[in-house]
Amino acid sequence: MAKRDKISMSVIRRLPRYYRFLSEIQSDGVMRISSKELAEKMRLTASQVRQDFNCFGGFGQQGYGYSVEQLRSEIESILGLHEQKRAILLGAGNLGRAVASHMAFEPKGISLIGIFDRNEELIGTTLRNVKIDSTDELEQFCAKYRPNLAVLCVPKDAARQLCKRLYAFDVRYYWNFSHYDLAADYSDVVVENVHMSDSLMTLCYRISDDIEARSKSE
Amino acid sequence: MAKRDKISMSVIRRLPRYYRFLSEIQSDGVMRISSKELAEKMRLTASQVRQDFNCFGGFGQQGYGYSVEQLRSEIESILGLHEQKRAILLGAGNLGRAVASHMAFEPKGISLIGIFDRNEELIGTTLRNVKIDSTDELEQFCAKYRPNLAVLCVPKDAARQLCKRLYAFDVRYYWNFSHYDLAADYSDVVVENVHMSDSLMTLCYRISDDIEARSKSE
Repeated sequence: MAKRDKISMSVIRRLPRYYRFLSEIQSDGVMRISSKELAEKMRLTASQVRQDFNCFGGFGQQGYGYSVEQLRSEIESILGLHEQKRAILLGAGNLGRAVASHMAFEPKGISLIGIFDRNEELIGTTLRNVKIDSTDELEQFCAKYRPNLAVLCVPKDAARQLCKRLYAFDVRYYWNFSHYDLAADYSDVVVENVHMSDSLMTLCYRISDDIEARSKSE
Repeated sequence: MAKRDKISMSVIRRLPRYYRFLSEIQSDGVMRISSKELAEKMRLTASQVRQDFNCFGGFGQQGYGYSVEQLRSEIESILGLHEQKRAILLGAGNLGRAVASHMAFEPKGISLIGIFDRNEELIGTTLRNVKIDSTDELEQFCAKYRPNLAVLCVPKDAARQLCKRLYAFDVRYYWNFSHYDLAADYSDVVVENVHMSDSLMTLCYRISDDIEARSKSE
């Protein structure tokens, strides 16, 4: 297994799905799986699966199927889940709470080391065993603990202002739930956006398409 | 503007971004925009923007730029945001609360008509002015109010069980935050998945890639 230089984002975006699926069948006790079975379960073609894996130099021997544990562990390594990251969460409202309480950070190499909010009622309380601090403390915290990853669960304008402050402290990695378009302002950050409203609008499109198709077939 | 038959999902997935961006500049008072400007702001090429719009028969005259209001309203119509949908939310924990309180449902034609949870402490309380009912009431509610869209904010196994019950009442549209793979069990549902952990793993990959690139350039 070897990382190649230019792997398309569409291949990369399928890796977490492989990883999730392999983790699941492994915990169900499955030891080996063929590319055909894997493809069927994931609704891809076997050739697609083989092509995806070839981007990383291929895994295992196709004839005998893949070792689930080996495949899972190699994808884990490609995904860089072993890389240790120090994360802070900005915004401890409903969305921040949902993210903090639902996400399995540790298996992805992420330590959540700080949570910040400007709501006086939240400051001093804890979330996932982490004390919520005032955003006024952000600079002091960053200087001391050097986080490198920030999870943005604040509104757009707050996100813009906070990123400016975080960028000054070399925070370059962002998991962004806000509508603030970070990449437009900073060319050297790595940002992964979760735009829930875009997903909902895509669903609306597909519903409307489905309604149209049904009405035509009637 | 005319809907064509086979539009690729990658074009469709860009429409919400156009829509969000156009709504924003419209509320800033911008009346017209050229494909070049639009492309720059969205970090696409002008030819990409024109190609995207051509999938729907093109909008306005390119030479004079697009009318922001017309473009926004046509994309709104393509996205089917006018289509009225009756939605229920399953799961009123942190994630369900975040979704219910953050999402602008109404502008997308979605009425949130019911919320269900099995947690006794939540049942009877309200969220976004909707009373939280026991999941035991699901069938009775579906028979009476006929929801057609379900938002799944429950764990995987609960999602599997609830979908079986919802499917029996003709609920075919799903916004799925759980890891339950609905499409594997039902071929005729429209499901849009929000897999936050996949997004986080993609970010991990990109961070690991960035760390590697930086170490090489040193």
